Amino acid sequence: MNNNKKIRIAIDAMGGDYSPANEVEGAVLALKNLGNKIVIVLVGDKAKIDAELSGYEFNKDSIEVLHTDQIVTMHDDPTAVLKTKRNSSMAVSLSLHAKNEADAVISAGNTGAFLAASTVILGRIKGASRPTLGTYLPTSTDKKVFILDVGANIDPKPQFLYEFAVMASIYCEQTSDINNPSIGLMNVGEESSKGTEVVQETHKLLKNSELNFFGNVEGRDIFSGKVDIVVFDGFLGNILLKFAESLAPFVKGMMGKLAGSKFSVEEVKLAGSVMKEVFSGLDPQAAGGLPFLGLNGISLVAHGGSTPMAFSNLIHKAIDLIETDINTKIETALNKG
Amino acid sequence: MNNNKKIRIAIDAMGGDYSPANEVEGAVLALKNLGNKIVIVLVGDKAKIDAELSGYEFNKDSIEVLHTDQIVTMHDDPTAVLKTKRNSSMAVSLSLHAKNEADAVISAGNTGAFLAASTVILGRIKGASRPTLGTYLPTSTDKKVFILDVGANIDPKPQFLYEFAVMASIYCEQTSDINNPSIGLMNVGEESSKGTEVVQETHKLLKNSELNFFGNVEGRDIFSGKVDIVVFDGFLGNILLKFAESLAPFVKGMMGKLAGSKFSVEEVKLAGSVMKEVFSGLDPQAAGGLPFLGLNGISLVAHGGSTPMAFSNLIHKAIDLIETDINTKIETALNKG
Repeated sequence: MNNNKKIRIAIDAMGGDYSPANEVEGAVLALKNLGNKIVIVLVGDKAKIDAELSGYEFNKDSIEVLHTDQIVTMHDDPTAVLKTKRNSSMAVSLSLHAKNEADAVISAGNTGAFLAASTVILGRIKGASRPTLGTYLPTSTDKKVFILDVGANIDPKPQFLYEFAVMASIYCEQTSDINNPSIGLMNVGEESSKGTEVVQETHKLLKNSELNFFGNVEGRDIFSGKVDIVVFDGFLGNILLKFAESLAPFVKGMMGKLAGSKFSVEEVKLAGSVMKEVFSGLDPQAAGGLPFLGLNGISLVAHGGSTPMAFSNLIHKAIDLIETDINTKIETALNKG
Repeated sequence: MNNNKKIRIAIDAMGGDYSPANEVEGAVLALKNLGNKIVIVLVGDKAKIDAELSGYEFNKDSIEVLHTDQIVTMHDDPTAVLKTKRNSSMAVSLSLHAKNEADAVISAGNTGAFLAASTVILGRIKGASRPTLGTYLPTSTDKKVFILDVGANIDPKPQFLYEFAVMASIYCEQTSDINNPSIGLMNVGEESSKGTEVVQETHKLLKNSELNFFGNVEGRDIFSGKVDIVVFDGFLGNILLKFAESLAPFVKGMMGKLAGSKFSVEEVKLAGSVMKEVFSGLDPQAAGGLPFLGLNGISLVAHGGSTPMAFSNLIHKAIDLIETDINTKIETALNKG
């Protein structure tokens, strides 16, 4: 291997809705800005990947193809990849990273399976009880808000939620210009006595920590930009995020009802253009994909329908996380005191 | 009492943000359409209520004022009204209903206190383990969706959630033109194996019931109009509803950022007018207020900032619920089989 001083990104080329076409095009796109800095390893059906690659011009030294003949599908149980699909493009991509033959992994495949496989194959950071998944959302202020857990942990213990806050704090410091980000705990009221037992217990842990804990926040405080980070369980997070993603189609549908009645078709059309811009930050494609936090490695999950540009953005994000050495910082934060 | 054949509505005149002005004006407004059909009992500080009433013309037989000198505040513990504030406008209004001297109660006061007091003073319907609170939201289709629990039960058992679905089903049949409404269980995926233990257990209860159970739905399915009713716990419900209510200010804030850059100030202003219409159904004022379901009585909680029109609408809603005898129907549904 003569590329071993370059950053190497393994991409599960078979996981997305438009595989391997979008993964391949995304890799070629990313290379345009990254020159000889990185090597991308496309893992999957070699014949199909090569066929896609044949349509592009790129530096042959910057892309490698590793053949695998198994694919993890959306219908596979999260544990299947570990039990019966160890030769899948997803598992092999992760194994490359575990063996230090890649510095990060990207997959647009089955999120549950990718999380389970990432956890087992890469292992957890010392002090991280569970890996978690968060995402930035826009707010009506100039700041973004980072929310987590958005679906990785359906029923987390207070300690897990506390650790998510620690990891989110580091992640935000590394990926935004905010120092010591403020953390809100999602609840049904401001008082510490509010909410479920798990939330009350989490409140205590956060309050007694060195984190910049703002206190409880409510549903309206995500978009208000009141805090930099909002912490909640993955059951709520999954539902809130999907609800947020449904806002644009909801508004579109409501506008359709108004066109030609209260407002002219032209007026509604113009409002639609404005709204498209307003909601652009809530498009899951905009984020490109999200990194799991808490793993001994850089593992990023892409949206199933990711475009080539989304894959390219995610490759850049992976490089940023590798270069900031985020996992060492997370491990230090989780294990101090 | 010479009004005892008329419908009598007790209003806690001291609970709202603009008490007793808006309660009084709302009562006078409602009487305009209802003629001699009802009597409204305004409960609270008689001097203040009479002062407000002096500004209006109305049939003196249709409004009674009952003096009380205690007020439940937003800072009171939910149990305070029962322990130390039995002579509050809230508690006395409920007692009137319990003694059959009123057929319904309306309060814009502290929701937690009103729920606790309603439960103790009115009692629960046989078979209703807990009272619940739901609300209609608009969808992008022609149908509304009824969601519950929106905050009454933070950590309900599966049996409670099942009962909420039964009560919502009756409520929707009585208050919309939908027969045998379809019920979705909010979850993180369609499969019955998804979600927390509570949700999985609730799925079984709903599946084995006579209800029109659609199955699990996801966050995006509230606004899509996929089902008529969506059931979830009150922790999630409180957060989702407050999040939904924050959409209009979020969109307004985002539009403010675009004005004068991507779009002209005039264009954004027009889009704002369209959006005001789009989001009108998400304004908590639009609903006027919500009835608790599962109580031996008609107890409606109004938004703290309710306008006179909101109180008037709520008086009409109370009359509808009395006339459809909704509680007998709920009791029958909860206790059959």
